[in-house]
Amino acid sequence: MTVPTTAPAEANTDSLIARFVEIVGDKAVLATPEAMASHMVEPRGLFHGRARAVVKPATTEETAAVVAACHAAGVPVVPQGGNTGLVGGNVPFEHGGEVVISTARMRRIRHLDPVNLTVTVEAGVILADLQAEAEAADCLFPVSLAAEGSCQIGGNIASNAGGTGVLRYGNTREQVLGLEVVLPDGRIWNGLRRLGKDNAGYALRHLFIGSEGTLGLVTAATLRLYPKPVATATAFCGLSSLDNVTALLRHARAWSGDGVTAFEFMPRFGIEITCRHMPGCADPLEAPWPWYVLIELSSARPGAGDAGGVRDDLEGLLGEAFERGLVDDAVLAESLDQRDALWRLRESMSEAQGFEGGSIKHDVSLPVSDIPAFIARANQAVTEAMPGLRPCPFGHLGDGNVHYNLTQPEGMDKAAYLDQWDAMNRIVHDIVTEMDGSIAAEHGVGRIKVGELARLKSPVELDMMRAVKRAIDPDGRFNPGKVLP
Amino acid sequence: MTVPTTAPAEANTDSLIARFVEIVGDKAVLATPEAMASHMVEPRGLFHGRARAVVKPATTEETAAVVAACHAAGVPVVPQGGNTGLVGGNVPFEHGGEVVISTARMRRIRHLDPVNLTVTVEAGVILADLQAEAEAADCLFPVSLAAEGSCQIGGNIASNAGGTGVLRYGNTREQVLGLEVVLPDGRIWNGLRRLGKDNAGYALRHLFIGSEGTLGLVTAATLRLYPKPVATATAFCGLSSLDNVTALLRHARAWSGDGVTAFEFMPRFGIEITCRHMPGCADPLEAPWPWYVLIELSSARPGAGDAGGVRDDLEGLLGEAFERGLVDDAVLAESLDQRDALWRLRESMSEAQGFEGGSIKHDVSLPVSDIPAFIARANQAVTEAMPGLRPCPFGHLGDGNVHYNLTQPEGMDKAAYLDQWDAMNRIVHDIVTEMDGSIAAEHGVGRIKVGELARLKSPVELDMMRAVKRAIDPDGRFNPGKVLP
Repeated sequence: MTVPTTAPAEANTDSLIARFVEIVGDKAVLATPEAMASHMVEPRGLFHGRARAVVKPATTEETAAVVAACHAAGVPVVPQGGNTGLVGGNVPFEHGGEVVISTARMRRIRHLDPVNLTVTVEAGVILADLQAEAEAADCLFPVSLAAEGSCQIGGNIASNAGGTGVLRYGNTREQVLGLEVVLPDGRIWNGLRRLGKDNAGYALRHLFIGSEGTLGLVTAATLRLYPKPVATATAFCGLSSLDNVTALLRHARAWSGDGVTAFEFMPRFGIEITCRHMPGCADPLEAPWPWYVLIELSSARPGAGDAGGVRDDLEGLLGEAFERGLVDDAVLAESLDQRDALWRLRESMSEAQGFEGGSIKHDVSLPVSDIPAFIARANQAVTEAMPGLRPCPFGHLGDGNVHYNLTQPEGMDKAAYLDQWDAMNRIVHDIVTEMDGSIAAEHGVGRIKVGELARLKSPVELDMMRAVKRAIDPDGRFNPGKVLP
Repeated sequence: MTVPTTAPAEANTDSLIARFVEIVGDKAVLATPEAMASHMVEPRGLFHGRARAVVKPATTEETAAVVAACHAAGVPVVPQGGNTGLVGGNVPFEHGGEVVISTARMRRIRHLDPVNLTVTVEAGVILADLQAEAEAADCLFPVSLAAEGSCQIGGNIASNAGGTGVLRYGNTREQVLGLEVVLPDGRIWNGLRRLGKDNAGYALRHLFIGSEGTLGLVTAATLRLYPKPVATATAFCGLSSLDNVTALLRHARAWSGDGVTAFEFMPRFGIEITCRHMPGCADPLEAPWPWYVLIELSSARPGAGDAGGVRDDLEGLLGEAFERGLVDDAVLAESLDQRDALWRLRESMSEAQGFEGGSIKHDVSLPVSDIPAFIARANQAVTEAMPGLRPCPFGHLGDGNVHYNLTQPEGMDKAAYLDQWDAMNRIVHDIVTEMDGSIAAEHGVGRIKVGELARLKSPVELDMMRAVKRAIDPDGRFNPGKVLP
């Protein structure tokens, strides 16, 4: 975790707040510590920031005016969506000199076009609401993740959110056709295109996607929709080895003609603590297995719910996997409730770790076939560094994405354990970097990985990132100290 | 077409060439007009450039040294791949002050990984060779276009090439996981990642993809592969109206569960001139129809070639399309030869126009459902401006991409007709812009659309593009005068 940036040159907070009230009205400007409290902490409680104010514009024009006022006053801005990010990119620093601009009131779905399969939404739309609107129009918006009930699409775009639909549909980046952005000087860029092909100039939208609010504030986006799947089949499998886990993925993709829509893996330790601590979670298999896979096939093909459809595909591919010795036990969901119960095991695994003491987190990616070797190397390195440490690697194996989380040794002091965060990160990130992986797969860099990014990226790449930052935000006013040191 | 940039400040060509020879050897430096000739003209013959030299480095390091030498001498660089681009981005200006760097000798496939479905290739690999290597490993590289026998993957990336596989697999952009780039100052950026998820910093690769060599020279790339389809079904249909064409697309996507892999449309005029002028081309339908569609389904699902597979799907969806009155006649390919013959009609349509005199080209995109209205408006506007003009709109309807080409009136002087290029462009591009389309869908901006881009893009977006250009190429030495004025 990096040192907070120092407070910016003194600006008059009172006059700035008066200007905000002029623009958005007094109900949309929060300026007391109590009113701002929920905007100052992030989900893991690692940071507790302060700010001059939290401003909640209702429109793009209001946002532009608020940003212009900050720009004129030389005050830095922290864009904030649903505040569910896990790397501290979404909260201000402790020095209190920043202004938080929340997108929470920009919640209009401007235009849903089921014929061309596009939707234009404002930044503050809750992801689950967007999914529901798409479904009501017989379409699918495929980004899906644990925080979908409270995260906002603007934050999903700023962080290029991953989740469980990436294997089939890609990251949030791949869903974005166009953006509307307020730039750091308060100008509005209307790049809301809804075209499958557009080579008229540089692909500027890709600069903002995944830049974590350091280049501008996304106010709206045009996104891709897909035909709604008509059938889904889900299974939960027990496996003896990680090599069998990666082999099962290859087998399933080949068998189904690339029809696998989710492929999540979990270790025995993760299932144990999830069933121990999380209500409604139970191991559906009789015997324990070293590794588990949640696999799902789905299809938008009419008839995919009938004989010869995805359910038969899943049974067929698991049957052959048994014969080949890849899978040792498996259960298929027979109802929507059973499917939800299987997914709950996976979705509750992060929270369950909190009941076992401190957890040091990593969100890394590698080529899929290198994951068994990575986990073996990393497990050895971290348990040598701290005997008794309990690794809990799980996540989106189909995307090569491992949440390599480390639960503290039993009985150790939690604070003393968490003091080792940076040291553990260095051990794991060095292995990831040697193996050509990424130290920030889907959660981003934010504040928590700024130092590691600077340590591990090539000087050429850091130079290019700084050049881009200077080009779009020459005064360094947008989310300073995040992503780039 | 824009005014050529003026020649750069005088640099000593002889000493520069001597330095190139030191780096790449004398056989890889072309410096006479005769030796350079094929690198100075582009496929449509619109421009005839000159250059100090054409240099053909064999490695990334040689490329970096050549670029560094140009940088030191203050000499601008034009990157060139297979030289098949259609917008003049790939050839030098007439002033002769530039150096062309050809990627033709960088032809290694460094690493093909069928397990993780990735391939790392050098920029000079011919697209068809890459397709063949992928197929030999039971994989698919899905970018496919008319020039695939001679275009190079580096050029495909620099231009974000489209083609006929976009509907199912996306543009070239969507295939790129990582890049290796020589920057304008001669430094090498190694961004060759092969990860499905990577949020560690800005997505710099997307800056270079589609930037047409104005920000750096791509020397290698890591690309996605896909499971090879096991079965393909192709049909050629006659339709009475453009509205039926877009309705057939919607129907086919729904019926097949998004299994349509190609959906190309052509007008009667295009089929007439193709059958008249191109050897081996014949209309497969008995009666003439106002519009034609080439539709293809394919699947990597084992058994997709058997009963209940893609062939049955195509027959079923066409059967229902007949009943609904969307399709008036259709023929299914019964063999690979028949499939090739149907595709030849589509692939030869550009060349056929050359036999009818001058052709003024547009490469535009719109939301699919707006295409009938666009073509009606544009046809009316251009034939009012020039009675007797023969519009030939065709292309990738599934992507919303129309090659809106205008064949000259019969009997008109070709040169006099082509003098109207800019005037016709303005008429068509104004309509496209009003309808929120793109004036450069898949061919790019190059030299030919620089003026139109500057005329039609918002000042904010042009400012951002210029800021990015200055950030990465501060001296403006890479392909100056292309994309940006």
